[in-house]
Amino acid sequence: MNLPLGYQYSTAYAGIRKFERDDLGLIVSNRAAWAAAVFTQNRVQAAPVIVAKNHLKKSRGLVRAVLVNAGNANCATRTGEAVATVTAKAVAEQLDAPVEQILPASTGVIGVELDPNLIIDTVPKLVGSLADNRFEDVARAIMTTDIVTKTATSVVELDHGLVRIAGMTKGSGMIQPNMATTLGFVMMDADIGPVELRSMLADAVEYSYNRISVDGDTSTNDMVLLLANGASGLAPNESDRELVHDALRRVMESLARQIVRDGEGARKFVDIHVRGARNDDDAQRIARSIANSPLVKTAIAGSDPNWGRILSAAGNAGSEFDPRSVDIDMQGVPVCRGGLAAEFVESELKRKLDERDCQIRFTIQGRGKGEARFWTCDLTEKYIEINASYRT
Amino acid sequence: MNLPLGYQYSTAYAGIRKFERDDLGLIVSNRAAWAAAVFTQNRVQAAPVIVAKNHLKKSRGLVRAVLVNAGNANCATRTGEAVATVTAKAVAEQLDAPVEQILPASTGVIGVELDPNLIIDTVPKLVGSLADNRFEDVARAIMTTDIVTKTATSVVELDHGLVRIAGMTKGSGMIQPNMATTLGFVMMDADIGPVELRSMLADAVEYSYNRISVDGDTSTNDMVLLLANGASGLAPNESDRELVHDALRRVMESLARQIVRDGEGARKFVDIHVRGARNDDDAQRIARSIANSPLVKTAIAGSDPNWGRILSAAGNAGSEFDPRSVDIDMQGVPVCRGGLAAEFVESELKRKLDERDCQIRFTIQGRGKGEARFWTCDLTEKYIEINASYRT
Repeated sequence: MNLPLGYQYSTAYAGIRKFERDDLGLIVSNRAAWAAAVFTQNRVQAAPVIVAKNHLKKSRGLVRAVLVNAGNANCATRTGEAVATVTAKAVAEQLDAPVEQILPASTGVIGVELDPNLIIDTVPKLVGSLADNRFEDVARAIMTTDIVTKTATSVVELDHGLVRIAGMTKGSGMIQPNMATTLGFVMMDADIGPVELRSMLADAVEYSYNRISVDGDTSTNDMVLLLANGASGLAPNESDRELVHDALRRVMESLARQIVRDGEGARKFVDIHVRGARNDDDAQRIARSIANSPLVKTAIAGSDPNWGRILSAAGNAGSEFDPRSVDIDMQGVPVCRGGLAAEFVESELKRKLDERDCQIRFTIQGRGKGEARFWTCDLTEKYIEINASYRT
Repeated sequence: MNLPLGYQYSTAYAGIRKFERDDLGLIVSNRAAWAAAVFTQNRVQAAPVIVAKNHLKKSRGLVRAVLVNAGNANCATRTGEAVATVTAKAVAEQLDAPVEQILPASTGVIGVELDPNLIIDTVPKLVGSLADNRFEDVARAIMTTDIVTKTATSVVELDHGLVRIAGMTKGSGMIQPNMATTLGFVMMDADIGPVELRSMLADAVEYSYNRISVDGDTSTNDMVLLLANGASGLAPNESDRELVHDALRRVMESLARQIVRDGEGARKFVDIHVRGARNDDDAQRIARSIANSPLVKTAIAGSDPNWGRILSAAGNAGSEFDPRSVDIDMQGVPVCRGGLAAEFVESELKRKLDERDCQIRFTIQGRGKGEARFWTCDLTEKYIEINASYRT
């Protein structure tokens, strides 16, 4: 894999998970990297989110390392912020870096105290086993109900050399659009300052993490972090930055789509495309309403071309449109024209809906130019099974 | 049953459902009744909703009969409004009433043409078999995925005699707060004018149908209708009207709760009570967010006292509160105090959560007086099963 230069990774089992699978990950940039981050908009914020925000502010956007654990969200706990701070400190000491350049991140169950000694005792081993090729190990260590690791990379050819981008993400439930969802860490080796970085991340999040939905819930621990350490020696000029920005968008879109594909209990990936709305915001609201409708998601699970539910979900979006101007296609088959049933062979379409990739096209005829893409998954019995007994 | 005077009911099988169970219902007031109604706020409105609104306007709020069918929503169909009008007309002719005094209502699948002749041919039989004791038959005929009929009655003792209220409702999926949800028909025999009636209905809906959620979806056909035909001979004065209003509220709360109890796939009824929010609106938003969270609903299904999900769902409500001031109780057991885990015996609480009735109390400590009740059900595999193949 063509990983960004100047980063190292390691993982270990600290005993936070009940079963023995690495539950601690460390991402280190050999020199302090510029960072941009987006966090959950939940009113309830986990301690690592609070501490990470605080550290980023104090460090003025410089980051040496990310310390991430799975198995415990370190949220709604008595000692949360102290635990996040003291474990970051343990890493800072080992790396000889200021503590505010270490960002904590957590994922797992809420409301259970996290024993800091489990982590502190493991940090020396973690730092001692850092290696530049253990990127996938960290992607695996941060998994909870995820079934597969989720990574994406890109190499951008600039005039004077290569810039490399590599991202990893986790998350398969509690996925809700409209904010930094789940954990995502994206590293690159270009030399780009924090202001530019923040605007690149905001844009890329808007068209990736903010356009996915598994169950409409939002975690207390969400965080997407972008690091740029300049190890490539390349400081892209304005037009080069466009290329890097495009590559970043593709990497983050890929990560977001992988989350949906690995949605809890999901058997199918659903690609929703809305066109012809009054504006992009309206299109996005309609797409999101379709994506979040349990009735649409269960119909997809059952390969049922129930376009009436799609139309009804769109009608609940709070956007203005004339139902009589709506065309809907599923798997490329017209199922609704002008708000009315189109002629289609139900048995054939049902077969097509058995595929793992489903497409819903929702088009409002008229002069509107608003357009949006949105990704979701089907809702199956398995989602219930996974979530009815998550803690036990 | 102590039914309101001056109403008659009948049902028949018109062949709209695929299987033979009465799919047509008629409610007649012997003299024109004053009516108030609330309708779905979905942007996509079924033909019977459009026609019923129109008829109510033309008749200035007078209603002789409601013609309701199950098995076909008469929504997103080419001929929808013509079908709703012509079938209402068939009833009007038989009753010798103006067509605008007949309200159509439909529930069932969207996007399939409804053959008006099925209904028109059945209307004579329907009118011929009207009887004042067939109230329950209509409640049964309007069921779709409902498992049980849902009715509630009340008798109000006024100084000069009795006023009787009887309501029926249907609905177990596509139930979303914040609007007239599903079908509900409430008859009374008091003599109350349309202005007063509308305000009584608006208030009663706010604390009943607007406070329930099964899956967060909203139908295109929702309608709740209140009729007052004056057959008791009693025109309540102001203080009497308060008594009638209270009884109406109780009847409608009972109907709404029955819908949740019969929620698709539901095994458990969940009563959510939020207190201490800044105001009632904030409390209601928090309660609704908890009620609509699939993660809370699946945890309840699994008898998992996962209060972290309740706190997190509340945090997504868009209401301001300090997580550190939150107390949560489940089944009367403190599970969270000041935003932190309380001491409780998990195995005992799990057993209590196996009961069919679950209570969640969410209290924000402080000076806030905002309070709200909300009712929902658990989310089980059965919901998926029902909805993955509704049309087939």
